[in-house]
Amino acid sequence: MTTVIAELRKSAREIGALRSASGLLGWDQETFMPEKGGAVRAESQAVLGTLLHEKLTADGYWAQLQRASELALDARTAALVRELKRDAENARKIPADLAGELARTASLAQQAWARARAAHAGAGAPADFLPWLERMVALKRREADCLGHSGSPYDALLDQFEPGATVAALTPVLETLRDGLVPLLDRILGQAQPVPAAPSGEVSVEAQKAFNARLLRDMGFDLDAGRLDDSTHPFTQGMGPSDVRLTTRYRADDWLNAVFSTLHEGGHGLYEQGLPEEEWGTPLGEAVSLAIHESQSRFWENRVGRSRPYWRHVLPIARTMLGSPVTEETLDGVLARVNAVDRSLIRVEADEVTYNLHVLLRFQIEKELFSGTLEVGDLEAAWNEGMRSLLGVVPETPAQGFMQDVHWSCGLFGYFPTYTLGNLYAAQFSVAMERDLGPLDPLIESGNLAPLRNWLRENIHRHGREFPADALCRRVTGADLDAGHFLKYLEGKYL
Amino acid sequence: MTTVIAELRKSAREIGALRSASGLLGWDQETFMPEKGGAVRAESQAVLGTLLHEKLTADGYWAQLQRASELALDARTAALVRELKRDAENARKIPADLAGELARTASLAQQAWARARAAHAGAGAPADFLPWLERMVALKRREADCLGHSGSPYDALLDQFEPGATVAALTPVLETLRDGLVPLLDRILGQAQPVPAAPSGEVSVEAQKAFNARLLRDMGFDLDAGRLDDSTHPFTQGMGPSDVRLTTRYRADDWLNAVFSTLHEGGHGLYEQGLPEEEWGTPLGEAVSLAIHESQSRFWENRVGRSRPYWRHVLPIARTMLGSPVTEETLDGVLARVNAVDRSLIRVEADEVTYNLHVLLRFQIEKELFSGTLEVGDLEAAWNEGMRSLLGVVPETPAQGFMQDVHWSCGLFGYFPTYTLGNLYAAQFSVAMERDLGPLDPLIESGNLAPLRNWLRENIHRHGREFPADALCRRVTGADLDAGHFLKYLEGKYL
Repeated sequence: MTTVIAELRKSAREIGALRSASGLLGWDQETFMPEKGGAVRAESQAVLGTLLHEKLTADGYWAQLQRASELALDARTAALVRELKRDAENARKIPADLAGELARTASLAQQAWARARAAHAGAGAPADFLPWLERMVALKRREADCLGHSGSPYDALLDQFEPGATVAALTPVLETLRDGLVPLLDRILGQAQPVPAAPSGEVSVEAQKAFNARLLRDMGFDLDAGRLDDSTHPFTQGMGPSDVRLTTRYRADDWLNAVFSTLHEGGHGLYEQGLPEEEWGTPLGEAVSLAIHESQSRFWENRVGRSRPYWRHVLPIARTMLGSPVTEETLDGVLARVNAVDRSLIRVEADEVTYNLHVLLRFQIEKELFSGTLEVGDLEAAWNEGMRSLLGVVPETPAQGFMQDVHWSCGLFGYFPTYTLGNLYAAQFSVAMERDLGPLDPLIESGNLAPLRNWLRENIHRHGREFPADALCRRVTGADLDAGHFLKYLEGKYL
Repeated sequence: MTTVIAELRKSAREIGALRSASGLLGWDQETFMPEKGGAVRAESQAVLGTLLHEKLTADGYWAQLQRASELALDARTAALVRELKRDAENARKIPADLAGELARTASLAQQAWARARAAHAGAGAPADFLPWLERMVALKRREADCLGHSGSPYDALLDQFEPGATVAALTPVLETLRDGLVPLLDRILGQAQPVPAAPSGEVSVEAQKAFNARLLRDMGFDLDAGRLDDSTHPFTQGMGPSDVRLTTRYRADDWLNAVFSTLHEGGHGLYEQGLPEEEWGTPLGEAVSLAIHESQSRFWENRVGRSRPYWRHVLPIARTMLGSPVTEETLDGVLARVNAVDRSLIRVEADEVTYNLHVLLRFQIEKELFSGTLEVGDLEAAWNEGMRSLLGVVPETPAQGFMQDVHWSCGLFGYFPTYTLGNLYAAQFSVAMERDLGPLDPLIESGNLAPLRNWLRENIHRHGREFPADALCRRVTGADLDAGHFLKYLEGKYL
C-alpha cells in the first residue's frame, strides 16, 4: 500500500511541478516579459500544456489511481486519491480535438471581443463578436456533455471552478441573496451622504510600494516566500507555499487603488502560503475551489480593509509613509470613499453591495444560455432588462453592457458565481471566526492581525482539497452556506 | 520528405520549448525568486530536466532522425539533421543512472566546495573537498567513456562545450598563445605606469541602470526583446531571439564594474537576439559553441569597451547621465584603470592579458587529470607550480588557488578553455571585420556601432549551428584559428 501511494504521489508531484513551471511562465508574462517575447512564450506554454495533459491522462497513471482507490486508506489519503482521480477523470473525458478547438477558439474569440469592443465603443450591435460567442457556447455545451451532468449542462461547467456546485444547490442561496439585496440597496441609497472629494495631489509610486509591502507584512504575508509586483490586472500566482507572487496596480493620483488590490491579492496569497508545504504538488496542497479562494481575498479586502477599525490603525501609518497629500486625509473621508455605494454599469468598479447584483445577472444569463431558454442573439436584450430590474440602470453600449467582461469570450462560463459565493463564504467564516476569537474589530484596530490569519490557516488553508467546499463550510461554521450572514453584515455596516 | 522534416522540426521545437521554459525558471531563480522558493524550483527543474531527457532519447524521435538522415537534403537542412542527431546521440549515450549520479554529486560536491572554502579561507589543505573532487573526476571519466573518444577522455568532455574541439587540435594553438604571452607580459609590465585612483564618491544605482541600458541600446541590443536586470553573478539567458535576459551587477562605489559586465553580457545578448527567429527551438536557432559565444562577449567588452575611441564617445555621456564624481573622471584615468595589467591570483579579477594564462593553467591540469598523469591529491602542488611558471605568483591558500572556481565541483571539466578560445576568436573576427568594414576605431569613436553589430549578425549570429566553430572561423576569416591575431592585438594595444 505504501508503495502504491508513494508512486502515486510521485506522479502527482511531477504534474504539480509542470503546473508550477507553467505558472511561473504565466506570471512572468504579466510582469517582466519583454514586449516581443509573447510568441515564444505561447509556444512554451502550449508544450507544457500538452505535456501536462499527456501525464494527466496517461493510462499508466490511471492504472495507478485505480490500484490506489481499491486500498483501505485513512481519510486524508482517501481524499488525496479522490481528488487526483477527479482531476484525471475530467481530463480524460475531454477528447484532444475538443481541447484543441476550445483553446484555439478562446484565443480567437478573445481577440474578436477586444476588436469589437474597440470598434463599437460608441454604439451599435457587436455583429463581429456574436458569431464567436455562439461558437464558444456550442463548444462549451459539447464540453459539458463530455464531462457529464445529470441536470443542466451548466452544472458541468460550474463544477470546473467550484467542484460540487450545481444550479439546483446555488439557485436558492443566490435567490435569497437577490431578494435581500435589491430592497437593501434602496434603503442604503435612501440614506446615502455625498462622498467627499479626495485631497488633490500625487503620491510617489516608490512610497506606495513600501507602504503596500508593509500592509502585506502586517497581514502576515511572508515576503521571503513571495513577492509583490506591478501589473495591469492584479493577480496572484502561487508556485508553491514558499513562492507566492502577488501583483497590484499603482496610481499616483489614487493611492487607495493599490491598497485594495494589495489587500485582495494578499488574501489570496495568504491562502497559497498557508497550504501544507509537504503536500506540494498534490491536491492536498491546493486550494479547494475558486469560491473559497475568493472568500479569503474578500475577507481581507472588505471585512478588514474597508472597516473603520482598520483605518483607525492604518491611516496614521499611511500619513507617515506616504506624506502629502495623504497627510490631509481624514478617517471619515477615507471611509466614505472606500464604502461609497452606487448603481453603476461596470462590475469591476462596483462596491461591495451592488457587486453581487452584477454577478447574479451573469449567473441568470449563463443558466438560461445552457438550459437552452436563451439564445446568444437575445443576450443583449436579456442583459439590459436584467440590469434594469436588478440595478435600475441600463447600459447604452455593449461595451458598458454584456461585452464588458472578457470571461465569456475565453469560455469561462460558470466562473462568475464564484465571486459572489466568495463574498458569502467570507461573511459566514467571519461569524465563525468571531465565535472563536471574540470580536474582530478590537484586534483589527490594534493592528494585531495574526489571530485572524492563524484562524484562517488553521480552519481553511491547511486542509488543501481534503474537504470539498460545502463540507469545509459545514466543518468550519457548523452550517450550509447561507446568504443571510452576508446580508446581515451589509445591514450592520451600511444602515 | 517535407513531412519527415516537418515532423522532426515539430519534435525539436517541443524540446526547444521545454528548454526555453527551464531557462526562464533558471533566470528567475537568479533575479526575482523569493528566498524560500528554492526547494520548489529545484523540483520543477528536475521534472523539466527529466522530461527533456525523455523526449531527447525517445525511440520514436530516434527513428524520425534516422529517417531524416537517409534523405537527400539541402546543406542547411542536412546541418539541422546532423546537429539534432548529435544532441540525441549524446543524450542516448549517457545511462540514466549515471546522469542521476552526476547531477546529485555535482550538487553535493558544490556544497562541499563552498563549505571547505569557507572553513579553509585562511590556510590548510581542503581535506573535506578532495574526496568529492575525486569522485567527480571518476564520474566524468565514466561519462567520457560513455560518450566515446579516440584520444584522451578529455576530448569527450571538451566536445560537450566546444563541439569538435580536441586536445590534439587545441594544444598547438594554446601553446603558441602561452609562448607569446609569457614574454609579452614581462614587456608590458616592464613599461607599466602607476594606475591613478578613481575619484571618490558614490554613483546612484538608479542612474547607473539608465546609463547601462543606454550602452546596450547603443550596441544595438533590443530592449523590447530583452531585459537588463541585477544579479550577483552577471549572466545571459535567451528564451529565444525575442526574449533575451541579461543581468549585470551595480556597485555604488565603482560605476565601471557594471559597465563591463553589461558590455560582456550585451555581447552574448546580441548573439542570442541575432539567431534566426524562424529556427527557434532547433539547432539552426542556437549558438554554435561556448567559445563562439564568448568571442561575442569579449569583442564588445574588450575590443570595443576597453578601447580609447569607445571612451572618447562614452565618457561625455557618462558624465552627463551619472553626474558627480564621474564628472571628475578623465579619459586617461578611465583607460588606465580599465586596462591595468597585473600578475594576480584570481582568474575572474584578471585583466585581458593575464586572464588567458589563468585559463591555460586550468587546461593543462584538466588534460593531465584525464590522461591519468595527474592525481587529484597532487592537484594543489601542480596548480601552485603552474601559477609560478605562468604568472610568477603563488597562492597562499587553496581558496586563492585551485579552489577559487566553482566549475570543477560541478563537473565542468572542458569548460575553461572556451573562455580563452573566445578571446582568440574575437581577435581573429576583428581582423576580418576590419577587412570588410575598414578601420573600426573611427566607427567606435563616432558612436556608430551598427555596422559592427550587423557584421556579426550577418557573419556569425544568423547561421546558428549550421557551421561548426572551426568551419565558421574559416568561412568568416579565411583561416583556421590562430593565436597570432590576439597576440598582435595585445602588442598593438599595450606596447
